[in-house]
Amino acid sequence: MGDRVLVPWDLDRSDGLGDLRVEVYDGTGEPPGDLSDVVFYVAPYGRAGALRPVARMPRLRGLQLLTAGYEHALEVLPEGAALYNGRGLHDASTAEHALALVLAAQRDLPRWTADQRRHTWAPHYTRSLAGSRVLIVGYGSIGAAIEQRLVPFEAEVVRLARRPRPETGVHGISDLHRLLPDADVVVIVVPHTPDTEKMFGAREFALLRDDALVVNVGRGPVLDTEALLAEKGRVRAFLDVTDPEPLPADHPLWDAPGVHITPHVAGGSATFYPRARRFVEEQIRRWAAGEPLANEVRAGAGQG
Amino acid sequence: MGDRVLVPWDLDRSDGLGDLRVEVYDGTGEPPGDLSDVVFYVAPYGRAGALRPVARMPRLRGLQLLTAGYEHALEVLPEGAALYNGRGLHDASTAEHALALVLAAQRDLPRWTADQRRHTWAPHYTRSLAGSRVLIVGYGSIGAAIEQRLVPFEAEVVRLARRPRPETGVHGISDLHRLLPDADVVVIVVPHTPDTEKMFGAREFALLRDDALVVNVGRGPVLDTEALLAEKGRVRAFLDVTDPEPLPADHPLWDAPGVHITPHVAGGSATFYPRARRFVEEQIRRWAAGEPLANEVRAGAGQG
Repeated sequence: MGDRVLVPWDLDRSDGLGDLRVEVYDGTGEPPGDLSDVVFYVAPYGRAGALRPVARMPRLRGLQLLTAGYEHALEVLPEGAALYNGRGLHDASTAEHALALVLAAQRDLPRWTADQRRHTWAPHYTRSLAGSRVLIVGYGSIGAAIEQRLVPFEAEVVRLARRPRPETGVHGISDLHRLLPDADVVVIVVPHTPDTEKMFGAREFALLRDDALVVNVGRGPVLDTEALLAEKGRVRAFLDVTDPEPLPADHPLWDAPGVHITPHVAGGSATFYPRARRFVEEQIRRWAAGEPLANEVRAGAGQG
Repeated sequence: MGDRVLVPWDLDRSDGLGDLRVEVYDGTGEPPGDLSDVVFYVAPYGRAGALRPVARMPRLRGLQLLTAGYEHALEVLPEGAALYNGRGLHDASTAEHALALVLAAQRDLPRWTADQRRHTWAPHYTRSLAGSRVLIVGYGSIGAAIEQRLVPFEAEVVRLARRPRPETGVHGISDLHRLLPDADVVVIVVPHTPDTEKMFGAREFALLRDDALVVNVGRGPVLDTEALLAEKGRVRAFLDVTDPEPLPADHPLWDAPGVHITPHVAGGSATFYPRARRFVEEQIRRWAAGEPLANEVRAGAGQG
């Protein structure tokens, strides 16, 4: 009996897979039957418990995630299995959502939505993105995708990452406090690590000018929720991620002035699936051919 | 006594103005004193009645509007006075708002705003702008500004104007019906003329696929409101302009499914004023120097 591969959707092509048997498990319910012959598993995206079946895959040699974050998978990864992440698959979707939030904030869209509910036609001058200085905190591939979309809006982009890269104009984290007072918009796209937890707190908010905008499309715990609540609307925050998450119905952040929330949907839009499908298809073809896979974040003992 | 100029704000520079006396009238209340010495008038933007004082300016030789539309001013323009419009001043602001509406629609922002009001965290996959085909109906300077902002989002742009311009890939209006069925998004940016009135009606809506998005940042009467209401949410419409306008509180469009309204605010954002100030400053300098002014839409008898 050949080795088995579990993928979250039907593959578009079945050629070039050799002896591999491909089966679909989309993350709902329990995966099909005995899992002892599964050697490669593509964990469904956005499903709680998608990694649970790994415990029943003793022969697993490759685990493919569709998220960029992978720390949670290291704990369940069998010895000798390689781990691959979904770096890059969400860049376009996340950058698009970041721009949607920045523009909604600058052009007062939530206000117009509320006015429409009340049948109120009450135009006023709004802020604009044009002429704004946007500080991208966490300038990596998503940050670059955000910048690319900001430039035609005549916004000025300031890049900041953990380590300074002077040759490409990227400031280091040590410049953060110096740069905050001049920012109209701060877009946070850093991952959650012990280093970044609550990195945006009372001190950072205090350095922002009145009415500045903070957009978080990174991870919720990077921003100190209590510190944001203490601002009482002095700055604006459009958040796709929160701490805690999901946000409980009785949490004060829901009604905090100047705070607007989308429920962690930046990475998951229509543009993600075609990219993920092409990527998974290619990864499995490489696996079958014994070629090195892309996005390896922990090496395994080999595919054979 | 020298000639007088009325402007809506203090000029940044007062040099190069010769004998001209510059006074500020921002459109609130009545303009200062006797207006018989006013030779150049910059009508305040967004003020009803801003053209009323023209009747009291017998020596007026130049009227500067800050809007692109100028038909309404021809009626009050004294004989021999030149008319200048505000073409170009609103391009960046309008294009920015168009993108804000497109992104808000594709990423379900009004839904998240409603969910936040109910303290509901209920993520779902959204549409995206990436991979969408966007038909720009009325490809002029604003249309080009919209296209420029769409391209980095990996959207495909299709250009359409009244007259075809094959050398720059612009379709003519006769291609509209052929192009509508393949559009995910239609952005309308045409002015209101007898030709364009209700140009987007039942026939055009019927050609759109289910769930297509129509964004109108042109003029309200270009889109047939009754035809949109008859769609009952089959297509989505994000409108910055409506017919009638302002929309009365009891109008059915407020609650129509799939319809989202902003109250004619596309052109008037923070980015407009700096542009308008620079432009007016330069126009008045030219006037004082006897040089030709920009944006002349009706010639006058001369500045002297």
